[in-house]
Amino acid sequence: MQRKSFRRMPCPIARTLDRVGEWWSILIVRDALNGLSRFEEFQESLGIAPNMLTRRLNALVGAGFLERRRYSAHPPRHEYRPTERARDFRQVLIALNAFGNRHFAPEGPSVMIVDAATGAPADPVMVDRASGRPIAPPEFVSVAGPAASERVRRRYGAPPAATTPVPKKKGRRP
Amino acid sequence: MQRKSFRRMPCPIARTLDRVGEWWSILIVRDALNGLSRFEEFQESLGIAPNMLTRRLNALVGAGFLERRRYSAHPPRHEYRPTERARDFRQVLIALNAFGNRHFAPEGPSVMIVDAATGAPADPVMVDRASGRPIAPPEFVSVAGPAASERVRRRYGAPPAATTPVPKKKGRRP
Repeated sequence: MQRKSFRRMPCPIARTLDRVGEWWSILIVRDALNGLSRFEEFQESLGIAPNMLTRRLNALVGAGFLERRRYSAHPPRHEYRPTERARDFRQVLIALNAFGNRHFAPEGPSVMIVDAATGAPADPVMVDRASGRPIAPPEFVSVAGPAASERVRRRYGAPPAATTPVPKKKGRRP
Repeated sequence: MQRKSFRRMPCPIARTLDRVGEWWSILIVRDALNGLSRFEEFQESLGIAPNMLTRRLNALVGAGFLERRRYSAHPPRHEYRPTERARDFRQVLIALNAFGNRHFAPEGPSVMIVDAATGAPADPVMVDRASGRPIAPPEFVSVAGPAASERVRRRYGAPPAATTPVPKKKGRRP
């Protein structure tokens, strides 16, 4: 369904979706973080057509989520390992996992996140690291950041005056 | 790019992507949570073709993320308001926002989440609500839940024995 690249949109959500927004890609990253690494393993896990899988794996390597390594020379065979970026993406997967269990698991959870030591199910919530407060309105809001365009600034409004950072020049990259 | 429905997959991530995994849908939910409600507003925000927007709005209404309400009888006009489900999806959007700013904003953040009172940027992290500990391996792991199929159980392994819930019968729905 992709008709238009989101890459040039300033929104960090849109930019991330541009890289991993395709359904398969997110499930491939999920599987890679769960230890799958070989083409056949992903194929078996996902029931995905080989040409589609090849495309998605290459795209994920290009976007820095997977590293391609040859594990056999004859015949040439590669495996795909998650990068630091993929490991950081785990936060998004945890949020999706918890949301899916809350909304789309009428028969009970099939996959859940638990405390490895006790087996107690986790109740994932997004908080601010410094204060530990849950990130939700009205306490926390989305605002235009220092690199925001005029358009984004109009939409989201500037940060509260107290700590407004000095806006950078448009188009400048540090 | 959708070739196959994820709806019947047991994974909560796959099921959620089946409902909102299409790029546009996630951005529409983002905009709805930011206060946009009318067809023209979404169209202007996203630069999306009208027929595509109509399809995505209908799908989001069907999946319970948006509520359609008539605000004018002559001519008939509708607005789209986020449901409780959409508000709960904010957790996923926060995770995507933070990830995008960390990985795909070389010029600095365009949209960021701040403390509404002080303007201090938030540093979103997913924690376990009860204990406050960050959800990350090896402390937290994904395991098969009570509704897991044999296949999911083989992949993820059962919960630690201490608190293993009694498995429900396959296919039973409470």
